[in-house]
This record gives sequence, C-alpha cells and structure tokens, in this order.
Amino acid sequence: MNQDEIYMKRAIQLAKKAKGGTCPNPLVGAIIVKDGKVIGEGYHKKAGLPHAEIEAINSVENKTLLNGSTIYVNLEPCNHYGRTPPCSLAIIKSGIKRVVIGMKDINGKASGGIERLRSAGIDVKVGVLENEAVRLNEVFIENIVNKKPFFVMKAAMFLNGCISAKGGTSKWITSDKSRRLVHRLRGTHSSILVGINTILMDDPLLTCRIKGYRQPKRVILDKNLKIPPTANIFSQYPDNVYIVTSKQSDHAKKRVLEAMDVKIIECNLKGADFDPSDLSIKLLENDICSCLVEGGSRTHGYFLKQKLYNKAYLFYAPKITGSYGAFNVAGFEAAKEPKEAMELKDSKCKRVDNDILIEGYF
Amino acid sequence: MNQDEIYMKRAIQLAKKAKGGTCPNPLVGAIIVKDGKVIGEGYHKKAGLPHAEIEAINSVENKTLLNGSTIYVNLEPCNHYGRTPPCSLAIIKSGIKRVVIGMKDINGKASGGIERLRSAGIDVKVGVLENEAVRLNEVFIENIVNKKPFFVMKAAMFLNGCISAKGGTSKWITSDKSRRLVHRLRGTHSSILVGINTILMDDPLLTCRIKGYRQPKRVILDKNLKIPPTANIFSQYPDNVYIVTSKQSDHAKKRVLEAMDVKIIECNLKGADFDPSDLSIKLLENDICSCLVEGGSRTHGYFLKQKLYNKAYLFYAPKITGSYGAFNVAGFEAAKEPKEAMELKDSKCKRVDNDILIEGYF
Repeated sequence: MNQDEIYMKRAIQLAKKAKGGTCPNPLVGAIIVKDGKVIGEGYHKKAGLPHAEIEAINSVENKTLLNGSTIYVNLEPCNHYGRTPPCSLAIIKSGIKRVVIGMKDINGKASGGIERLRSAGIDVKVGVLENEAVRLNEVFIENIVNKKPFFVMKAAMFLNGCISAKGGTSKWITSDKSRRLVHRLRGTHSSILVGINTILMDDPLLTCRIKGYRQPKRVILDKNLKIPPTANIFSQYPDNVYIVTSKQSDHAKKRVLEAMDVKIIECNLKGADFDPSDLSIKLLENDICSCLVEGGSRTHGYFLKQKLYNKAYLFYAPKITGSYGAFNVAGFEAAKEPKEAMELKDSKCKRVDNDILIEGYF
Repeated sequence: MNQDEIYMKRAIQLAKKAKGGTCPNPLVGAIIVKDGKVIGEGYHKKAGLPHAEIEAINSVENKTLLNGSTIYVNLEPCNHYGRTPPCSLAIIKSGIKRVVIGMKDINGKASGGIERLRSAGIDVKVGVLENEAVRLNEVFIENIVNKKPFFVMKAAMFLNGCISAKGGTSKWITSDKSRRLVHRLRGTHSSILVGINTILMDDPLLTCRIKGYRQPKRVILDKNLKIPPTANIFSQYPDNVYIVTSKQSDHAKKRVLEAMDVKIIECNLKGADFDPSDLSIKLLENDICSCLVEGGSRTHGYFLKQKLYNKAYLFYAPKITGSYGAFNVAGFEAAKEPKEAMELKDSKCKRVDNDILIEGYF
C-alpha cells in the first residue's frame, strides 16, 4: 500500500464505527494529514449530525495547521445544503490544499463536490481504495441505485440445510459463539426482519444483546396481522417494532398496536405475497436501510424467490438430522435445473468455534 | 518429530499406496533403516500378496545389511499362518535387531507378534505415531471391532442441503474439481453404494474415471429388485456389481442378473428396511470393507437413521435454490430436539475450487 492508501484505510476504519447507524446517510470517515502527521480525524455518526469532513476539521485545535494539509475521505464531499451545509465549502475555507477521495458520490442531490473543490484550486485525487470504499457503502449504494434496503440473509442450520428439528424447534442449533456473532450483526444493521411464523413459534425478543451496540429496528412481515399484542417482542422498545401488513388486515388490531407505539406499515400485495417494490419503498421511507433477515423458512423463501437478497451469512453446525418434519432454510419452489440455482458470489468460509460460516453476495 | 516418527511417517505413506485395495487386510507399510540409511521398503498391496515386512526385507539386495537394522511398520507384525507365513518369524530370521511399531494388532487371530519378537531378544517399541496408525487403518478396525464395513457418506448439494433441483435432476451441482475429487475417493474405497432410486433416476456408471486407480465394487440397495437389466451400470464390469435385495424379490430376475455375472446378495429385512447387521455381515463376506455411499436422499436417510455412518464428505456448491420439490440429503425423520441431532466430529472445512467441502467423523 502506498501512503494515500494507508491513510484511506484509516478513514474507512473510522467510517465503520457508525455501521448501521447513519441511515439514510452513507458511512463516511475522514482524516487530515500535514507533513506526514495525522492532525485530525472524524466520522459521520448519525443523520442530522455533522459530516465526517466537518468532524475531522473541528478536531484540529490549532486551525492554522490546516493550511496546506491533505484530507482523506472515503466518499466525495457533499456539495449541497441538506441538514448541514456543504462540506466542499468547509474544506475550501479551511485551507486544506489536497483532497483524496475513495469513491465519487452516486447520490445526484449531493454530488458536484469534486468539481467545486477543483475549481477552487484544490488538488483532488479520486479512486483510492475504491473497491473497499464501494463495499463499505454497499447499503447506501443499494438504497440509491436499486431503491430498496440492503437485504441480508442470516440462518443457523444443520448440515442438511434445515433450520429446525421436528415441528420447528430451533433452540439451539449453532454454538454460543455463532449466536454472539449474530448479535453483533444485529447491532450493525438498521433492522432485523422476521416472518410472523417465527414470532408465533419462537416468541423472540430480537434485540442486540451486546453492550455498546445500537438497538436495530425490528420488522415483522405479518400479512394477516396474526401477531398477539402480548408477544415478547413488544416487551422492550415497542416503538422500535415495525409490522408490515396488508391494507385489508384487522383495522381494530392495528389501532391497538399503534396505541402501544408499535409502527404499522401497510404494504400492497402482489398475488399472495407482499409486492417486493412496495415493501422496499415502505421500508426505506421508515429509514430502514438494511435488514438482517433471520427467517423462518417461508420468509427466506420469499426473499430468495423475489431475488431481493444482497448478501448471506449462513451458519452451519457440524450436525445433521432428518429433513422430514423439519423446516428447510429455503422454503420455496426448487429450480427446474441445477444451473438455474442462485449463486453466492465472493463466498468466504470460516470457522466460528465448531460451526462453519459461509458468507457471500447474491 | 523425532527420528522414529520420521521413519514411521514414511511407513504410513507407503501403506497408503494400497488404500481401498487390501480388503479384508489392513494397510501396512514398512521401512528398514541401518546406520541412518534407508536400505529397504515395501507395503502390502493386496490380500494374498506378501505382507509389508516381507516386501521390505525382500527389497534389500545385500541381505547382510539387515544384521542389526531397524524395521518400522505401522501395524504389529502378524504371528500366524494365514495365506502367508508369520512376519514375526521372518523378522527374527532376517537379523533385524529393532522393531518400531505404530499400533498393536487388534485382530486376535494374527496378534502375538510383539511377544514373539521380544522373546527372540529383539528390541520392540510400540505406539510411535499411534493416532496416525489408527486413522490409517480406520476401515480395518471398524471391520474387526464393529463387524461392519466402514460406511462413508458422500453428497454434493446446494447450500440448503438439497441434492437435486426440482424433481430430482442433479447434473451438475458442484464443480468439475469436486467431481474429480469424488472419483479419487471412489478409487480409494472398496465399494461405491447407491440406492435403487439413484439408478432409476440418473442411470450412472459409478466407475472411478481416474487413471491408475482401482475400480471399486458397485453396490446397489434394491429391496424389490427394480433395476432394469439394461441399466448403464452393467455396461462395464458387470461382475463388479453387487445387488442387495430381499429374499422375497423376483427370483427369475435374480437368475437373469446372475447370468450377466452380476452378484446378488440376499439380505434380511427389519421392518421395511434392510436389517443393518445382516447388511453389514453380507457386505463383509463379499470383501466389501468400505462403502462410499453416494445417495440418494432415502439411502443417506437409512444410513443416518441406523447410525451406520463412520465418516462424511459433504460438498456444497455456493448456490441455493428452493427446497420444495427437491430432494434433501437427509431423507428421514428429523430429531425432536436440536440437541438430538448427530454430530460430525473432528470436522474440517476446505475449499475445492468454489465449492466448500466439509469432512468429519460420526
């Protein structure tokens, strides 16, 4: 790695600190370097709070040091008045003479920063660690480009792909360590999503139980509004629960749940299922930028069939039991030919204790 | 590793050359060392041919060199007159003064070699690389101790544990490289075993298609003798095909198949399935010491349910499709609780091209 890449790596590292918490904004980190010394750094913590560049500039106590310095930032500085003024202007005013950028902004509204910086005589370099910068903001990019949340499949299963024993019991298939890792995943996604059958069968809390992590929103797909108002999920942060249901489902029950501060999202149907575009739009409108989808079988089946998934975390316990009477992770119609199966790209495989974790992108 | 271990490793390496081919005998390699120099080596190639110790002694041209030398052998030299005279005697006569052994023989008939060598004044060391020696002869040990073949589960599947697309098509789920590895596995087992449904659906040859490897026996579980005499499997080496069927099934068809040189094994039933003990005994009687069981769903289900499996090679393509209408690798009733699932011990996970191979012991 050359010097620019080394500093960009640190900017990306800073940006990651807010993973899952900046929705609908991107993850951005910035670092300011003068004469080979880091003089300031910062990252964007939450929508509405200052952008990374401003945080980094503000972190420099002696502002005269900024003259002739270089700022590294993983995303093109914004050029628009949103909830905060444009970062491009703040950089120009600060005396910074060089800007190194990971990737150009893809959000039309905010872009133009590079041109403005250049026309102010600033040396701008674009595309340093671009692949890493793109991957860092895979959620933001998916939101903007495909107008949908970044959907992540998570499942814990036996070696034969079943996510339960007979009749649906699933406590516990994988190891403590895998389950702790799932809690960390929960804390870095804007939401967890499950189908109503998971609620009715397991009655889970779906919270992130690791200190220092955010509580993700909890989304339940419940077409016919079967959820009992006494479900465990309402026992903590009920205002953090989003129930996606059809327009037709029980209106009185909707009012009961809303009175408990639960959010009701009415979504159009397409055939027997939720319309995937309407579902995507409604979730984005509720600042749900990423969903860790935790099942069950039919819910994974819906997301797979509709080709909504972006990524998967598949945990396998080194155990096997029968498939008869158990739920398979992929509850939908099989393809006619093996070659029509969906591929997991850039797949990685690692051990988590005795379990095997397979990760990849759809 | 100390010197004894280094030479034992080589003896084990030699023994492995005959993997799958010595049935019902164990795998044995031997190496003779004098003054820090290897003067002879050999291994047991096939039942009826000389034992490893004899091969090694015979490989030394100048027999006077044997005086005062050390022989390394992974299994206790035999002490009985079987198809060949006892190796213990040959060692004593040769002038070898030290014998280093991996593991004691567990076969009552042949053991006693260590005592005889010691009473002839030879220095005997036992238990060098014992774990490796035991693993090397896992098939032989299973045959002797549990009076059954060493059954190995092999499956190629999607990430959801399904071994086919809709309706049963399975060509091809995994990569070329995985399939070549399966051919190597075939060449190192005494047999391949499949259920009749695999024959009826895929009509496979089930040969080992890698040069230099042995052709394993091919075993078909076919309770009702549904196999058509025109099946592909009979097109090459029909005398190498063993059909396990019930006593009740079509006698005339049995005679037709036998006239084609196909072996018919009549096996007792227990309920609707083959009696696992009788199946094991009948296979051993036919010098089938290890079976690479290649499916399909119900056949794996039978071996899993009966707890017959010793080992598994599970190949996963990084692909997923639905489970509805597809065959799952484990076609039997699921356990009531996740904790009742069977565990795969000493599991290892590696990439084979883009596929993931999970190996382990039951």
